[in-house]
Amino acid sequence: MKKPKTVVITGAAGQIGYALVFRIASGQLLGADQPLVLHLLEVPQALAGLKGLAMELDDCAFPLLRKTVCTADANVAFADADCVFLVGARPRGPGMERKDLLSANAEIFAAQGRALSANVAKEARILVVGNPANTNALIAMANAPNLSPHQFSAMMRLDHHRTQAQLAIKTQHRNEDVRRVIIWGNHSTTQYPDIHHAHISGQPALDLVDEDWYQTEMIPCVQKRGAAVIQARGASSAASAAHAALCAMRDWCLGADDWTSMAVFGEGQYDVGKGLFYSYPTICKDGQYKLVEGLAINAFSRTMMVKTQAELTEERDAVKHLLP
Amino acid sequence: MKKPKTVVITGAAGQIGYALVFRIASGQLLGADQPLVLHLLEVPQALAGLKGLAMELDDCAFPLLRKTVCTADANVAFADADCVFLVGARPRGPGMERKDLLSANAEIFAAQGRALSANVAKEARILVVGNPANTNALIAMANAPNLSPHQFSAMMRLDHHRTQAQLAIKTQHRNEDVRRVIIWGNHSTTQYPDIHHAHISGQPALDLVDEDWYQTEMIPCVQKRGAAVIQARGASSAASAAHAALCAMRDWCLGADDWTSMAVFGEGQYDVGKGLFYSYPTICKDGQYKLVEGLAINAFSRTMMVKTQAELTEERDAVKHLLP
Repeated sequence: MKKPKTVVITGAAGQIGYALVFRIASGQLLGADQPLVLHLLEVPQALAGLKGLAMELDDCAFPLLRKTVCTADANVAFADADCVFLVGARPRGPGMERKDLLSANAEIFAAQGRALSANVAKEARILVVGNPANTNALIAMANAPNLSPHQFSAMMRLDHHRTQAQLAIKTQHRNEDVRRVIIWGNHSTTQYPDIHHAHISGQPALDLVDEDWYQTEMIPCVQKRGAAVIQARGASSAASAAHAALCAMRDWCLGADDWTSMAVFGEGQYDVGKGLFYSYPTICKDGQYKLVEGLAINAFSRTMMVKTQAELTEERDAVKHLLP
Repeated sequence: MKKPKTVVITGAAGQIGYALVFRIASGQLLGADQPLVLHLLEVPQALAGLKGLAMELDDCAFPLLRKTVCTADANVAFADADCVFLVGARPRGPGMERKDLLSANAEIFAAQGRALSANVAKEARILVVGNPANTNALIAMANAPNLSPHQFSAMMRLDHHRTQAQLAIKTQHRNEDVRRVIIWGNHSTTQYPDIHHAHISGQPALDLVDEDWYQTEMIPCVQKRGAAVIQARGASSAASAAHAALCAMRDWCLGADDWTSMAVFGEGQYDVGKGLFYSYPTICKDGQYKLVEGLAINAFSRTMMVKTQAELTEERDAVKHLLP
């Protein structure tokens, strides 16, 4: 039997956390032969509810789960962590401006960056799910001097899945036949779902769908899907976000045979995203992500890519007092 | 690729449903090579929320999920169903007596029994999760003349897991080293968690724990665990119940190498449970359950087994007007 891996979920007692923890404990993250220790972090006022979740974890008698630690102390939570899901974030409260929200979260993620830097395992991977995820990832990374920027990523996988699914539904193909979609930029309504390089059962996606449908229906549908789910459910996406987080971390750790989209620290590839957590097409292999390089970018794509970059730059500027 | 199987979840938009649907869609019920069609049943007033859940299912881009049907019509939901999870049930409302609750649910499950009888696939397996699960299963079965009683079972797996886990925690062994625990009787506070035949890493369980602890602490802990989780979480068990339902149906369909506990139509085995859905130790193999036979029953066990039978008999008597 392998040595246990430590998986951390912050905001574990929230809706996404609740949907994520049990799937991880069941072995879907790292496989059916990988024992796990779970470290669950919550704010002090949510520790009672977190204890209930831990009771339910016990009540599942999961074969792989060796130990569950519930804590409000980030240093305890991040100790020797191999995989970290930063799910907890401050939601927008009444009367809060967007800038206030960015700042409130920036403070949380700056503190978590310092705690991560001091505590995690050498090869730890850190996936930021809590919004604004890209800028939260930037803040955490910038406050984690002992870690490489490449150990951080912000979650774009839900947008990626949504794009795959919309194409599959429209063309009546299966989800797994839709490959090489890309999300560029920010996990927000400015994100750019790009299907110029996608293919569906081997055919170019844009041979199967109308360009007008793609630009005027599919892109806004994916960009605003979160709000549409809230409208229908009366609650924000939880199980689908948890599924995306699971897939994103799993592929990062274990590899995958299709491209995915990950917001990672940009070094100016494709002339966008330098110094930002910008989403690019990536390939996961041997525990590392690599950017897909050399794709042709047409004028439509360029406009969309620059627009979402502008939003990320604004977000960074709003929190620059917390970037060391 | 195999032909898709149809899996039904009633009360799909509820808390247990929400925790269960995504785990099924991910392949954890019938395996990573078994395509699925999901039929989700809800009461009319919950269809809007169910639509949100279906949007989230789309947004997961699950490779195995071929189609999702959302409906308030049991005949549509149960059409050609292979695996049916009867999760939805009427919860106790203000001022409702226990008898009112039994009757309200009996009406729901009588109607579902008729719809099951008319619509499901020949080999369908039907697991009742909604409480009072055992008596609901009896009512549904009694109203399903085209189906065999052996196609119905009420869920005891959560109690079974809780018993395993309490023994594992107490003895500091792993969950999977705790084998052959039994839950007898009703899924209620009269249930009897029996560890006389259990072993832990090959040693008899009762050689490793004190009999007094077992009788005065462990049994009440398992019997009242549901209330303790509600107390801690502020909400009833959802993810652990969903996990138990998944495991119960999976083992029933695909087999398992340990005993489990299933409430099934009793034919008087062990001199208890005749004509009731009474929980027995079972072995699942080749898509069938078989009772574990020939176990010695001591005086303590006999008393406990008779007590939980008495409660089930009372429940049956309270709804006998709905038993054809």
